[in-house]
Amino acid sequence: MTHSHPLSNGIIRNDRTMSDGRTIRYYDTQGQTRTAADQRPQEDQPGIGELRLDSLVNEWVAIAPHRQGRVFLPPKELCPLCPTVGDLLTEIPDSTYEVVVFDNRAPSLRAPGDGWELPDRLGPQTPNAPAAGKCEVVCFTSEHGNSFADLSEHQVRTVLEAWRDRTRELSQLDFIEQIFPFENRGEEVGVTLSHPHGQIYAYSFLPSRVERMLSAAQKYREDTGRVLFDDLVAREIKDEVRIIARNEHWIAFTPYAARYPFEIHVTPLVPVADMTELSPAACDAFASVALEVLKRLDAVFGIPMAYIAAWHQAPVRQGRDLLRLHWQITCIRRAPGKLKYLAGSESAMGAFIMDMKPEQSAQQLRDVVLGS
Amino acid sequence: MTHSHPLSNGIIRNDRTMSDGRTIRYYDTQGQTRTAADQRPQEDQPGIGELRLDSLVNEWVAIAPHRQGRVFLPPKELCPLCPTVGDLLTEIPDSTYEVVVFDNRAPSLRAPGDGWELPDRLGPQTPNAPAAGKCEVVCFTSEHGNSFADLSEHQVRTVLEAWRDRTRELSQLDFIEQIFPFENRGEEVGVTLSHPHGQIYAYSFLPSRVERMLSAAQKYREDTGRVLFDDLVAREIKDEVRIIARNEHWIAFTPYAARYPFEIHVTPLVPVADMTELSPAACDAFASVALEVLKRLDAVFGIPMAYIAAWHQAPVRQGRDLLRLHWQITCIRRAPGKLKYLAGSESAMGAFIMDMKPEQSAQQLRDVVLGS
Repeated sequence: MTHSHPLSNGIIRNDRTMSDGRTIRYYDTQGQTRTAADQRPQEDQPGIGELRLDSLVNEWVAIAPHRQGRVFLPPKELCPLCPTVGDLLTEIPDSTYEVVVFDNRAPSLRAPGDGWELPDRLGPQTPNAPAAGKCEVVCFTSEHGNSFADLSEHQVRTVLEAWRDRTRELSQLDFIEQIFPFENRGEEVGVTLSHPHGQIYAYSFLPSRVERMLSAAQKYREDTGRVLFDDLVAREIKDEVRIIARNEHWIAFTPYAARYPFEIHVTPLVPVADMTELSPAACDAFASVALEVLKRLDAVFGIPMAYIAAWHQAPVRQGRDLLRLHWQITCIRRAPGKLKYLAGSESAMGAFIMDMKPEQSAQQLRDVVLGS
Repeated sequence: MTHSHPLSNGIIRNDRTMSDGRTIRYYDTQGQTRTAADQRPQEDQPGIGELRLDSLVNEWVAIAPHRQGRVFLPPKELCPLCPTVGDLLTEIPDSTYEVVVFDNRAPSLRAPGDGWELPDRLGPQTPNAPAAGKCEVVCFTSEHGNSFADLSEHQVRTVLEAWRDRTRELSQLDFIEQIFPFENRGEEVGVTLSHPHGQIYAYSFLPSRVERMLSAAQKYREDTGRVLFDDLVAREIKDEVRIIARNEHWIAFTPYAARYPFEIHVTPLVPVADMTELSPAACDAFASVALEVLKRLDAVFGIPMAYIAAWHQAPVRQGRDLLRLHWQITCIRRAPGKLKYLAGSESAMGAFIMDMKPEQSAQQLRDVVLGS
């Protein structure tokens, strides 16, 4: 059975169920039908992990030991994110696709049973909870050798629509608090599959950074009556020196207090809480700035830049008028042969030390010559 | 000129001034005199960096671009942390040493001018401040090829006394809020000098993790009237399954909600705010547990384990009755060929996902066979 959902911009989502019960969603722009069946044998889904409170800092840690024992590993020469060709059965049963999103085979977080509730946090007495949430994989293109920066604007628009669709749908699950689409790119950040793809983590708790952003925004609202992020963006526009790229709807800049040798924030000029609130014009205009920024990153050292590209969105149920959508890209490479490591000060203390001024990396990013 | 300071346990500290005005401190147990002069040419000290507020999360970031231009680099075959032999001039002018602590040549943080003050944090309007603080280097032994785990108990006792002495003295500087002795070990965490050494960062602000620990401890005190860390340790003792090593004065365990494949906390059984408050008996008993823990880590995979060993102490001026001294050792190796990378969820969201139960890594650490 295929379920079809029409989305914005002529994009249609077709859902199919995989052999082990997971859902795969095809996002298409040419009215394709998607009927290919998953021919792999049925298989039990792994169990659910647990949330334990790290009471020293009052933060949840997800423990998912079932991930270690995951059975399905495709042969090395077979990329599980390419379309299925003949009897080389991959995660994508069809022989073609534009963009797909499917449930992660070994999710760190998954749908809990009925009546799931996050316990109050009160030191070591706090009980564990099932690691509720959702983990999905987003394949940006069927072209194995490409990367996000190689996509066409049309393709980026489809990826954005898939992210928006997932944000909208996952927001409706009553155990979800935060939806986080992201991409890890490069072996330096631990990526083992080179096929261009990202992930979506939907958390049943507020991650530490979101709590800290929310608390900073709340305090700023109390002190000034204003929205912190809007004032940050106004400062970047006024200062100009850290701006990397912009168009009518989006701006990209190295933040004033960057923590990584190359860190870029990309945000819409009309602020919104999350992707679902972007105007059609803002959606259409995202690709040109996104592609420019990623191409500039690759051009800085003339080698593909390893990065983490993280979508910060307002939480589903709180702070909707305080936190703003932005795309944070962080790169740990300082020079062709040098990485910035998170050592004692950063890792154990959370105190970041930067050897490079953000104005300097902004200059380097603006100065590169982009091919046509 | 040499200044001598008698410390505990028959240890004497001798201070000398280096060519560029920095101080080197020799910690000795045999009544040595230290008169060797630094024969390197005089050299200007680098300037001071700046603290910028990352207002999104209301945290200070230190920006130290002067570190990039540092001039002194010893020739590759010369370790700058070995004693000086002949005309191979290193950071340590003497031809022998037990333990030395000297001011970092390219410090991220340094003593500010008079009247330095940390600005109030209020969004993007917050002014920058000079990056006040102190950065010191601690050489654990003159033996280049050793590591901390190879030290004798006598040597560890001297290192501990040096850490205690630095904590005591740095606490007296009016611009210091937090004193953080730590060791980064292994290329996997970015270490470029293999000579066994650690560092001390003394911050003029509360690092993010300390703020979060303090806030958790305050809330716990309000809710229960009790000290959070003491209850955590009590739970570990009761549960037993995560304990790695212990003696009459110290206990080492894998914490209940560990964030790394191998994470160990070591803490005195009589809680103290910082190292200066340790009893003589606790000081003497530290080495046996510390050495056992580090030897077990190296034995797990039969290769030297890369780690960050971080001393958490109560801040200098607040929370002295709420936060407790503990030594947190985190290792990113999951298996001989596998590292845990901090990717999207951990790095951008601060939400840690663990593939391994802490009870499982505790078991592995207990099961290794230690050589004599």
